[in-house]
Amino acid sequence: MHNVRTYGDIRVFAGTSCPDLAEEICECLGVALSPREIIRFPNDNIFVRLLASVRGKDVFVIQTLTAPVSHHIVELLILLDTVKRANAGRITAVMPYYAYGRSDKKDQPRVPITARLLADLITTAGADRFLTLDLHAGQIQGFFGIPGDEVSTFYLLSDYVMAKHLERQPGGSVVVTADLGFAKKGRNFAQTLNLPMAFIEKRRTGNDAKAQSLTVIGEVEGRSVILVDDEVDTAGSVTGAVNILKANGAGDIYLCFTHPVLSPPAIDRIRALPIKEIITTNSVPLPEDKRLPNMTLLSVAPLLSEVILRIHEGMSVGQMFNE
Amino acid sequence: MHNVRTYGDIRVFAGTSCPDLAEEICECLGVALSPREIIRFPNDNIFVRLLASVRGKDVFVIQTLTAPVSHHIVELLILLDTVKRANAGRITAVMPYYAYGRSDKKDQPRVPITARLLADLITTAGADRFLTLDLHAGQIQGFFGIPGDEVSTFYLLSDYVMAKHLERQPGGSVVVTADLGFAKKGRNFAQTLNLPMAFIEKRRTGNDAKAQSLTVIGEVEGRSVILVDDEVDTAGSVTGAVNILKANGAGDIYLCFTHPVLSPPAIDRIRALPIKEIITTNSVPLPEDKRLPNMTLLSVAPLLSEVILRIHEGMSVGQMFNE
Amino acid sequence: MHNVRTYGDIRVFAGTSCPDLAEEICECLGVALSPREIIRFPNDNIFVRLLASVRGKDVFVIQTLTAPVSHHIVELLILLDTVKRANAGRITAVMPYYAYGRSDKKDQPRVPITARLLADLITTAGADRFLTLDLHAGQIQGFFGIPGDEVSTFYLLSDYVMAKHLERQPGGSVVVTADLGFAKKGRNFAQTLNLPMAFIEKRRTGNDAKAQSLTVIGEVEGRSVILVDDEVDTAGSVTGAVNILKANGAGDIYLCFTHPVLSPPAIDRIRALPIKEIITTNSVPLPEDKRLPNMTLLSVAPLLSEVILRIHEGMSVGQMFNE
Amino acid sequence: MHNVRTYGDIRVFAGTSCPDLAEEICECLGVALSPREIIRFPNDNIFVRLLASVRGKDVFVIQTLTAPVSHHIVELLILLDTVKRANAGRITAVMPYYAYGRSDKKDQPRVPITARLLADLITTAGADRFLTLDLHAGQIQGFFGIPGDEVSTFYLLSDYVMAKHLERQPGGSVVVTADLGFAKKGRNFAQTLNLPMAFIEKRRTGNDAKAQSLTVIGEVEGRSVILVDDEVDTAGSVTGAVNILKANGAGDIYLCFTHPVLSPPAIDRIRALPIKEIITTNSVPLPEDKRLPNMTLLSVAPLLSEVILRIHEGMSVGQMFNE
Amino acid sequence: MHNVRTYGDIRVFAGTSCPDLAEEICECLGVALSPREIIRFPNDNIFVRLLASVRGKDVFVIQTLTAPVSHHIVELLILLDTVKRANAGRITAVMPYYAYGRSDKKDQPRVPITARLLADLITTAGADRFLTLDLHAGQIQGFFGIPGDEVSTFYLLSDYVMAKHLERQPGGSVVVTADLGFAKKGRNFAQTLNLPMAFIEKRRTGNDAKAQSLTVIGEVEGRSVILVDDEVDTAGSVTGAVNILKANGAGDIYLCFTHPVLSPPAIDRIRALPIKEIITTNSVPLPEDKRLPNMTLLSVAPLLSEVILRIHEGMSVGQMFNE
Amino acid sequence: MHNVRTYGDIRVFAGTSCPDLAEEICECLGVALSPREIIRFPNDNIFVRLLASVRGKDVFVIQTLTAPVSHHIVELLILLDTVKRANAGRITAVMPYYAYGRSDKKDQPRVPITARLLADLITTAGADRFLTLDLHAGQIQGFFGIPGDEVSTFYLLSDYVMAKHLERQPGGSVVVTADLGFAKKGRNFAQTLNLPMAFIEKRRTGNDAKAQSLTVIGEVEGRSVILVDDEVDTAGSVTGAVNILKANGAGDIYLCFTHPVLSPPAIDRIRALPIKEIITTNSVPLPEDKRLPNMTLLSVAPLLSEVILRIHEGMSVGQMFNE
Repeated sequence: MHNVRTYGDIRVFAGTSCPDLAEEICECLGVALSPREIIRFPNDNIFVRLLASVRGKDVFVIQTLTAPVSHHIVELLILLDTVKRANAGRITAVMPYYAYGRSDKKDQPRVPITARLLADLITTAGADRFLTLDLHAGQIQGFFGIPGDEVSTFYLLSDYVMAKHLERQPGGSVVVTADLGFAKKGRNFAQTLNLPMAFIEKRRTGNDAKAQSLTVIGEVEGRSVILVDDEVDTAGSVTGAVNILKANGAGDIYLCFTHPVLSPPAIDRIRALPIKEIITTNSVPLPEDKRLPNMTLLSVAPLLSEVILRIHEGMSVGQMFNE
Repeated sequence: MHNVRTYGDIRVFAGTSCPDLAEEICECLGVALSPREIIRFPNDNIFVRLLASVRGKDVFVIQTLTAPVSHHIVELLILLDTVKRANAGRITAVMPYYAYGRSDKKDQPRVPITARLLADLITTAGADRFLTLDLHAGQIQGFFGIPGDEVSTFYLLSDYVMAKHLERQPGGSVVVTADLGFAKKGRNFAQTLNLPMAFIEKRRTGNDAKAQSLTVIGEVEGRSVILVDDEVDTAGSVTGAVNILKANGAGDIYLCFTHPVLSPPAIDRIRALPIKEIITTNSVPLPEDKRLPNMTLLSVAPLLSEVILRIHEGMSVGQMFNE
Repeated sequence: MHNVRTYGDIRVFAGTSCPDLAEEICECLGVALSPREIIRFPNDNIFVRLLASVRGKDVFVIQTLTAPVSHHIVELLILLDTVKRANAGRITAVMPYYAYGRSDKKDQPRVPITARLLADLITTAGADRFLTLDLHAGQIQGFFGIPGDEVSTFYLLSDYVMAKHLERQPGGSVVVTADLGFAKKGRNFAQTLNLPMAFIEKRRTGNDAKAQSLTVIGEVEGRSVILVDDEVDTAGSVTGAVNILKANGAGDIYLCFTHPVLSPPAIDRIRALPIKEIITTNSVPLPEDKRLPNMTLLSVAPLLSEVILRIHEGMSVGQMFNE
Repeated sequence: MHNVRTYGDIRVFAGTSCPDLAEEICECLGVALSPREIIRFPNDNIFVRLLASVRGKDVFVIQTLTAPVSHHIVELLILLDTVKRANAGRITAVMPYYAYGRSDKKDQPRVPITARLLADLITTAGADRFLTLDLHAGQIQGFFGIPGDEVSTFYLLSDYVMAKHLERQPGGSVVVTADLGFAKKGRNFAQTLNLPMAFIEKRRTGNDAKAQSLTVIGEVEGRSVILVDDEVDTAGSVTGAVNILKANGAGDIYLCFTHPVLSPPAIDRIRALPIKEIITTNSVPLPEDKRLPNMTLLSVAPLLSEVILRIHEGMSVGQMFNE
Repeated sequence: MHNVRTYGDIRVFAGTSCPDLAEEICECLGVALSPREIIRFPNDNIFVRLLASVRGKDVFVIQTLTAPVSHHIVELLILLDTVKRANAGRITAVMPYYAYGRSDKKDQPRVPITARLLADLITTAGADRFLTLDLHAGQIQGFFGIPGDEVSTFYLLSDYVMAKHLERQPGGSVVVTADLGFAKKGRNFAQTLNLPMAFIEKRRTGNDAKAQSLTVIGEVEGRSVILVDDEVDTAGSVTGAVNILKANGAGDIYLCFTHPVLSPPAIDRIRALPIKEIITTNSVPLPEDKRLPNMTLLSVAPLLSEVILRIHEGMSVGQMFNE
Repeated sequence: MHNVRTYGDIRVFAGTSCPDLAEEICECLGVALSPREIIRFPNDNIFVRLLASVRGKDVFVIQTLTAPVSHHIVELLILLDTVKRANAGRITAVMPYYAYGRSDKKDQPRVPITARLLADLITTAGADRFLTLDLHAGQIQGFFGIPGDEVSTFYLLSDYVMAKHLERQPGGSVVVTADLGFAKKGRNFAQTLNLPMAFIEKRRTGNDAKAQSLTVIGEVEGRSVILVDDEVDTAGSVTGAVNILKANGAGDIYLCFTHPVLSPPAIDRIRALPIKEIITTNSVPLPEDKRLPNMTLLSVAPLLSEVILRIHEGMSVGQMFNE
């Protein structure tokens, strides 16, 4: 008995959220991005038409779920419905950045679990599988009833940082997390880089909901700091973290995270901070005016295209990583 | 055996799309609009929190699906998920205007049926029932697997027009549809008003996809015209219709339709047309700058509140209309 | 990467509703109709047994949903269940004529939407896909959650009529619809044949629910008429239409429609009418005694077999038509 | 805490299969059968309209699934869809006789399991619960995913027979089953009546599929026989059984079964047999010409109405029987 | 058109319930059992990890559902979830012995139908198909909504018995069932072996729920007896049957059944009984101390492996048996 | 309009996992635990029978999912199926301790997400709602598609600790988490108790998968330590934590956690450790031999009964906590 590929040719479609990344993935795959028409009518309704047959094909639909978020979500859902009704053989929703990751539990009464809702919507619209990068919480995988792959940019980022040999810095270096929810993943960075850790603890003070006090727990004085997180949104936590780290005598600060959401006023805040280098990826498209001189953008296209190919060919994805 | 109401108290929540209509419905119902928090974060994620318990209650969520359409859809879906996870007894999605009504079939290869997708999304998010006004096609009712009510503004509009006694106009009057897809519903208007009908036929000409020729079929010369439709979007058809009607010698023109979508440049076009009166409803909120002096806005709030009350009380809704 | 067919061999089974059409489709496909046993027991229960293995095969089940309608529906559902439990690879329900097309919305209180119910039943029974011809309303496509193809006989019919060059008739010709619900599709005929249009408007009169008045809107005097519709059932509308057309001075009348349902007393009525030619298809089997001398039956077998082949081979179906 | 009825008023609708039984059930319940319109159009499509509101009500739809079976099934499904879309509070499908009970397993390759299919169709159409009498196999309960009640006419039949005191017959009496599949339920009869048992074994002989040999296993000579079964269809087995029993010297023969399906030529066969009394129920309507002088019809209406009332009132149904 | 296999390579995984049988099946198939890790943590949680990629593969998961039953069920469900989330192409749950077969109907109020529940759980966990041997009731097939195969060991057992030519025994032989629920299947044995039948009837006596009286119905005196059943659990019925048979003068007794569940104190009871030979299979693993000298174990591995191969290759399974 | 309770009387059933807690909850509720029969047959199959009608009732099924875990899960599922098929009005699965909380994501290839699987199984078996205490990850709420409540024992534990006024200890006190995944919830404890925090970081060392090094991050010397976690299983982490804390000069150590899973050899380990007081709850039943002299067991019964009552009465549960 031998291996037979079980789906027709590969077809890659992209929504309007990350055209450059989609093109780059297709280049890596050696296939052309499939043509489609996406029109936004004056009444704000989205119209989709595929310009190539997908009958029986193995279709991948790429859409990163950044602002305008609702628009990109609905566009993705309509694309999936279109591909399903056009009789595709199999449909994988490829979402380099998954939205609503922080709405993943009811931590107060009468709030939604939007990350689960989103998984259900994607399934309802017709996806057979999902593919995404570094979810805010790994448990979001379990919000999907359909199979899929969460792929990590951990090695992409840690290999880059490792090559800097920050452990040789005079005074040494330390990995720091600004969010206690990222403490465990931060530990994995520290372990791989063979560096010690420290944490920044945030605490509400007094009756004012906004007033917070920050504390550094662990040793940072005189050390270079690699501040790690999964995403940076408005950079409020980063700002607080960098300030308290500097106040505690930290040396050079490197900021390292997967998803550059960078909502306003993130860029203004980060530009003003004494950060030596910002290391992130292109999972979220960054317009020119959001690219800072000290910013290093690592491309996730080779990673995603390799995974897409393995999915299509029925080869192990796990093998790429921990085996 | 006697009738027992089967759900707890009524609770009405509203999204951000039609706050005035929601308030007006609640006034008619004699209940207060239930408090909720809806925040749009800098990263464009929507956050919802209900500020009153809905446990076991009979909840109605009001959201009209106008521009920004994707945002209002996602907000509605998140509201439904929130209400469901907050353990409501029953959930009715109230959508005075349902979006994507024109995406109701595959009339060319590889296009979506977004009106069906939307029905599925609303069901997935947690609605037990739907309530809407004048769908673009009645068949969209069947896109829902859950029960619901499509209520017509037909009598609201026709009663208003009937009171004008246009049949007594010198030269007489005629009901005209600008869209052949509305021919049958236009006939119902004509029958109720006891007036004859005429049609405007649109036809592509030559190879240019945009070039169209219009023909009036039926008698309009010297007659007052009631031009009827379900909605007016960019007013392209209306403009063509009014011009060809006038060119064919029509008298006063009354424009009568349910949903004032009025996407740009609708208002500019309509303002420039020789229309005597525009009769429509508040199913879609109209900002001040879209309200023309010759526009009559009939409120759907009494109609919707009466239906909501009957749903809640387990009384016949059909009885309000055709029995 | 190259195209691999993703299902096993093709298998075509037929219910008892249209054996000749099924045979003709198989001849066009170049495959034998797969053997099966269908028994109707004395207690009116239907028993089905497939006489050939379908394990992993690409199975098409052909059943046109004409009278006895319930019997043909249940037989189709049982066939689908049989094929599913026999472990078919993929199942397509092929319904040349789909029943209950007119029960597609709640246009009065407390009526069913049987066309949606039927779509759900077919899905529940095990169909993965559907294939049908000219639905009464295109929206019925959206009643299915599974993908499928609605194929049009438009070109089959219009090519035949075009070859008659009715536009060269002295007095000219005109396309007429007897039902305002078919106005838009009638326009497509008129446009393709490059002929003008007229409509027949039906209106209830007085309190008697049955009393109707008919009006011709548009010019028909002295012109040949192509009266178009999707199906002819009891021919009540056709009778009224032909009479009023003749009363308005129409010339030769051609009756052109897809589905010859022709329930009693349709044939008696049509035989008595001054119709020059009746053009229809074999989507519904016509016994000898329903075939009139002036009737032209165009076969849908080449069309359906081509579509089935393309579905099986994973080739574009859309390409056959509008591209 | 006290018991609150959780649904609105009771509403009972009936299909066209058993109008007398439905009326009788309503009389027992003390409610009027709810009015509805059921039309069979010339094209054999069924049209249903409820003439009373069911919004929030506790609706019971009565339909026994006898010939014409497909018609009665589809009519039931359409009724359920109508009631669901009319916003009923809860829907119970009441099927005194459930069809396709013998199609309950794949005992040869590529046959359907229609009894399961039917359960799924009923659920898809909108039933929340089922209620039926004496299924051919108790396992068919498990074909439903929705809750329900299978109620037995066992006591109705056995009480009637017990009152005859057949155990006092000279020579004694014996309970016999003609079908080995009914052996276990036959034992329950024998145990309740405190009588011995015998069996008739049927066996194919030679290569002719139809040739069968019958053997009586157990003592019947000189004894009165109560021949028990769940239903009698064409009476082929009964005929064989009575003949072999008489050939083995049996005395009076009583035939006792729940469902008088009695498909042709059952009545002719039974009329010709030396049976002393036929005891059955009205779960299947028997026209006058099928009623024999030696036939006793026990009504299931009191039983079904008591169960319906208990379902509606939330009282134990089990308590009526084995507790 | 030619046959193309539609899934990738075959992969066979086994739970911990029947390692020897799984190995034997793989030997017959000529494939290696796929490696996996199954750990039972101190907190009694089960952990599964597949040590080989299953992406796109045709996966068979073998688990027989014997004691500890709950543990083996949950282990199977977790295995299925693991295989599904690892992106298998198709998943077949292979259960040589299916648990809870006797919980297949509500024969008293407020009991579960666990055999249906189990089918639903297996489907929920991710199985696309099922494969099992000799269900307690054939109807359990219909508890599954997914397709599958119930394969019979009938020929395995009857061929073995037939080779003994018990019909040549002096005094002759007879097939006996100890459970009236197995009467019909027992008849099939008798017919194939061309032997007469007898039955043992069990009846409760008096008010004591446990007191039972046994009666032999049919002739057994001086005859060899083949006592047949689908499974032997605690051997209570077998003990009663053998005793009453011997008391009625039966000769040699052969005990023949598919599933050796043999819960305590079955082995002690059987060892003490005058049974000439016990013929059963390895569908349930028998530890050495449960193997008696007069026990013949027939392996189901060749049968199951042949079926698995045919499923994988898309060949008819039915053909192996009754055609 | 006024509030009407929407379900019948409350009924509380319990599995066999936590009989004392179930009784205590019922005492708090003022209702009797409903009688049921649960038998474990010799073949290890579980049999359930409810001894009281649940028709239309508001049923709560209590089962804590501790060892033997599979047995308790399957028992719960069968109970749910039983209650569903017995026609309950609403069913809430009450699981004081939810199993498989640590199997909540694929953190390596080809592992299951058993916590999601379990949520799906519970839903499949018939639960309409869930109720649980302190999930290992809050995201597990989102694994359920049905609504439910995760209730926290946070205040139960923190109120108890707060009353000790550890902040007044000489040297002060500090809150410590042994698992970085609990860092954020640990912060909430520290904030409420107004104490500083420290962390213990665990890191693999060398190639040996088991070798770990522990580091204390933050100040503990001379301070009393409150070591907090959600559950203690084998107490491996606790042992390491206490040892490294003592090695770093910590003072009194208080161990505070919700779920006393305490799998072997937890009790032996904890008994040997220098812990001043162990504060936990009865969410998991602790046999006498697992109760240590320095252990304080806080009962969750008042909390759960209050929540059950509010669910039943349709009152806010959120109000009990954060409002």
